Amino acid sequence: MIKDRGHNMDVISKGRDLFADRLMEKIANKGNPSVLGLDPRIELIPECFKEDADGRTRTAAEAVLEFNKALIDAVWDLVPAVKLQIAFYEALGLDGMLAYRQTVQYAAGKGLITIGDVKRGDISSTADAYKAAHLDGYFACDAITLNPYLGFDSVEPFIAACKDNGKGIFILVKTSNRSSGDFQNLMADGEYLYVHVARKVSEWGLGIKGGCGYSSVGAVVGATYPEELRLLRSIMPNVPFLVPGYGAQGASGDDVANAFDKNGLGAIVNSSRKVMTSYLSAGKGTDVTRQEFVRYARQEAINMKEDIKKGIEKRLVSKEGW
Amino acid sequence: MIKDRGHNMDVISKGRDLFADRLMEKIANKGNPSVLGLDPRIELIPECFKEDADGRTRTAAEAVLEFNKALIDAVWDLVPAVKLQIAFYEALGLDGMLAYRQTVQYAAGKGLITIGDVKRGDISSTADAYKAAHLDGYFACDAITLNPYLGFDSVEPFIAACKDNGKGIFILVKTSNRSSGDFQNLMADGEYLYVHVARKVSEWGLGIKGGCGYSSVGAVVGATYPEELRLLRSIMPNVPFLVPGYGAQGASGDDVANAFDKNGLGAIVNSSRKVMTSYLSAGKGTDVTRQEFVRYARQEAINMKEDIKKGIEKRLVSKEGW
Repeated sequence: MIKDRGHNMDVISKGRDLFADRLMEKIANKGNPSVLGLDPRIELIPECFKEDADGRTRTAAEAVLEFNKALIDAVWDLVPAVKLQIAFYEALGLDGMLAYRQTVQYAAGKGLITIGDVKRGDISSTADAYKAAHLDGYFACDAITLNPYLGFDSVEPFIAACKDNGKGIFILVKTSNRSSGDFQNLMADGEYLYVHVARKVSEWGLGIKGGCGYSSVGAVVGATYPEELRLLRSIMPNVPFLVPGYGAQGASGDDVANAFDKNGLGAIVNSSRKVMTSYLSAGKGTDVTRQEFVRYARQEAINMKEDIKKGIEKRLVSKEGW
Repeated sequence: MIKDRGHNMDVISKGRDLFADRLMEKIANKGNPSVLGLDPRIELIPECFKEDADGRTRTAAEAVLEFNKALIDAVWDLVPAVKLQIAFYEALGLDGMLAYRQTVQYAAGKGLITIGDVKRGDISSTADAYKAAHLDGYFACDAITLNPYLGFDSVEPFIAACKDNGKGIFILVKTSNRSSGDFQNLMADGEYLYVHVARKVSEWGLGIKGGCGYSSVGAVVGATYPEELRLLRSIMPNVPFLVPGYGAQGASGDDVANAFDKNGLGAIVNSSRKVMTSYLSAGKGTDVTRQEFVRYARQEAINMKEDIKKGIEKRLVSKEGW
C-alpha cells in the first residue's frame, strides 16, 4: 500500500519545510501509517523497568522513561511517529514532566515525528503561552493536539506556527470516546457539530498545504466511529487525520481504513495500550523480561501495521465510498 | 451586598465538606466575589522582582514566584480565591511548573481557595490521570477548569472528586474571547450549543449541591457577553459561575452583575491583567518599586470589589431580568 505508492511523495515541495510533508514522507518511507502511543500507566509497567542495572529502585518517572525508551527501541524503524499523552506525565509531577521532555527528545533522536497529545484550547493570549510551551519551548513537539471549543482565535497562534515554523496541529473533530456524541453530535443547521468543526478545520488549513497535498492543520477523528470517519474524510480532503481508538478502544484495521484517501494516504493511526500491553496479551505478567517485552511489542507493532494495511487494501479494491 | 447577606451562609450544611460551600463561605467572609488571576507574563513583571536581596538575577520562574507572592500578600485579606492560568507556567518549563505549585501552596497557606485554570478535557482513562495531576497530586488545586467538548465521560472522574473529595470544577460554557461564537453559538434544536452545555453542566452537578444552594460543578461564563450571562444565570440556578473577562478584556462591574443571583451570590469574577498591571495604569514603568507595586495592586483590587459591588447593587435595586 503506502510504500508501493511512495511515488506520491515525489511531488513534495522542497521549498517549504512543512509538517505535513515531513509526516507524509516519513509514513511513505516506513510504509506504515501507525503511531506508537506512549501513555505510560504505572500499573502496566513491567518490573524490569523499575530497577536500574545496580539494583536501585527507580522513581516512577524514571521507570516511565526507561519503559518508553524500550518501546521506542523496539519499534523506531517500523513507525513514523510517536504520540505522548501528557496527562500521564503531569500525574507524576515535575519528574513526570521531565520524563515527557526526555522521551520527546529520545524519539526525535531516532528520527521519529513527535506528537504531544495535550488537547489545549484557550483565549489567544493564553494560546500564545501554550504555543511557547508545546511547540517552541521546553515541551516542544513537532505537532500537538488542540480542542476547538473556543473557536478560531484560540487556534490562530498555532496555525501561524504551522505556517512559519514547520509545526503541525491536530484539532479534535470527532473523538473516540463513548460520550463524544453528547455535544459533537448535536445537529445545527442540518449538520452535526463535528461537521461544522470539520469544515472550519479544513478552511483554517487552506494556506498551509504541502506538496503532498495535505495541510499541516490536521484533525483528530476517532476510529471507533467508522461511518463518521468516512464522511469526514470526504468533507476534509486535504486534512491529515490522527486516528485514536485502534486496539484497546475497539476499532479494527477495517474500521480505520475509512480514514485514508484513494491512495491509501492521509491518516496516522495511534495505538497506545495494545502495543504497550502486548506482553499481557501474550499471557505474560509484569515479571516479563525486558527482552521478551521488546519482542512482544515489536511483534504487536508489526501485526498492527499489517492489519491496517489489509484494511486499506480491502477498501482500495472495493472502492466503496470514494 | 454580599457581606450584608452573610446570613445566607447560615444554612450551609456542616455535614459534608463541599467545595461550593467553602467557596461561598469564603466569598461571604471577605464580602467580595472577585478572584485574583495569576497569569504572569514575563514582560509585565517589574524589575524589582527580577533580582533577589543579594543582587543575584532570578530565573524567570523565580521572578514569577516572587511576583505572585507580592500580589497575594497585597490582596489576600480582600479576595476569597486565586486563579492560576497554567499556560504561563508551562511556557517556563519545569521551573515554571514548580513555580505553579509553589504559588498554589503559598495561596493556600494564606487561606485562599485555589483554582487551576487548566481547561483539560480527554477520554475517561486520561481524565483519571488529569484528575490525579490537578486535583489529587502534585499540581492539586481546590478546583480546576474543564473543557466539555468530549462529553460526559470526560468529566465524570472530576465530578466524582467533587462528590467524594470536596473538590470543585468549572466547565467552559460560554467563553469570553472574540471567536467564542464560532461553535458555542451554533443553533441546535432551537438553542445555542452553549445552552445545551449549560443544561448538561446543571444536570451533572445535581447530586453535589451544598447547603449554600450551589453545586460544586460550576461553569465558566465570560463577562464580555452580559446578555448571555443573564440567560445562563436563569438556566443554571444552582451552578456557581467563574466569570473571566472583567477589566483588560473589556467587561465592567455592570456587565458582570448579570452573573449573580437575586441575593447577590453565586459567581466569582476573575481579573488578571488589571490588577497585575495596575502600576502601568498608574503611569509607572517596570522600574516601579515593590512597595509601590503592592500599593497599586491593592488599590486596584479594592476598586474592582467596589465596582462589582456597585454593579450588583444596581441590579438588585432594579430587579430587572430576575
